[in-house]
Amino acid sequence: MDPKINFYLVLVHYPVYNKRGKVVASSITNLDIHDLSRLVRTYNGKGLIMVTPLKSQQAMIERITSHWKSGFGAIYNPNRDEALKLVSVVPYLEDCIAFIEQKEGKAPVLVATSARELQGRKISYRELGKRILEGNRPYAIILGTGWGLADEVIEKCHYILDPIKGLGNYNHLSVRCAAAIIVDRLLSWRERDEG
Amino acid sequence: MDPKINFYLVLVHYPVYNKRGKVVASSITNLDIHDLSRLVRTYNGKGLIMVTPLKSQQAMIERITSHWKSGFGAIYNPNRDEALKLVSVVPYLEDCIAFIEQKEGKAPVLVATSARELQGRKISYRELGKRILEGNRPYAIILGTGWGLADEVIEKCHYILDPIKGLGNYNHLSVRCAAAIIVDRLLSWRERDEG
Repeated sequence: MDPKINFYLVLVHYPVYNKRGKVVASSITNLDIHDLSRLVRTYNGKGLIMVTPLKSQQAMIERITSHWKSGFGAIYNPNRDEALKLVSVVPYLEDCIAFIEQKEGKAPVLVATSARELQGRKISYRELGKRILEGNRPYAIILGTGWGLADEVIEKCHYILDPIKGLGNYNHLSVRCAAAIIVDRLLSWRERDEG
Repeated sequence: MDPKINFYLVLVHYPVYNKRGKVVASSITNLDIHDLSRLVRTYNGKGLIMVTPLKSQQAMIERITSHWKSGFGAIYNPNRDEALKLVSVVPYLEDCIAFIEQKEGKAPVLVATSARELQGRKISYRELGKRILEGNRPYAIILGTGWGLADEVIEKCHYILDPIKGLGNYNHLSVRCAAAIIVDRLLSWRERDEG
């Protein structure tokens, strides 16, 4: 087993904005759990933390992960098991911070991501990636669902990453695609430098 | 409107392998259409081409795209419209080649992607990205669903891209996440070079 990289992906379902700019709890998307846990596993991260205070949504996540972790699914497709055992559920961001701190013995550095240009303490992908790979502290890469993280989450973060802009004026990646690009930009720059 | 980048994403549902290594037609996944069309739009590509010979699956794609292109969805969420109008459906890879040739006046350069290490004419992400940005010919970036592109597809391709490896021994990204990383690696290296 390769040594793990000390980062967590955090997918926030509350508090996030809806289309009208109101703070809501968004619904869980089944494929987010599969795609993002496999992403974390591929880049050898510590975990995927789903944040939702809704009991019914928490139960849904448990159902999905336990099917693949222990049921028929674990035998049919062990690769999913390996990814899904990295998934945890917590009600609020504070619980997420406490969860990581308990596991790692240090509070995580909180990093906000957004499709919008935000004011705050910017850090480049390369610089943040270097710090994550140094491994001195756990890093929580925080992604919003719906129309993005509420300001109250962003204000709690230590750093803000630039939006993924692509090559035009359109900036509406799915959270699955955005997360994949963000993690790859953070952690594969050594490989990229070589071509 | 920025000038478009001359690439197409091609998502192949037949011929692909299933879990047991048999050639099959895989099912369409709703979110692939949404995620990959938004990815193509974000990187200013020419189109997303879904390859499936199954009539019922073709009809399903038409239903999903027309809901957002012309129905209630187009008014509710115009961003989806802008992405989904890039989606086309063809029965076979040959039709995909003909479709691009007709649109662009030149046959596309076919580029295979795979989670497995393949034998063939390798090209680096950076070199391929440079050629795509030169804009002299259309490029088709071909992705498999299920357990990957059948050999008969790969043999028709002019180039093969290395698998996305991440940072460990686990190599099972979803096609949505893999496609996002591939397109970003191809087309955002100038931005990356600057940090």
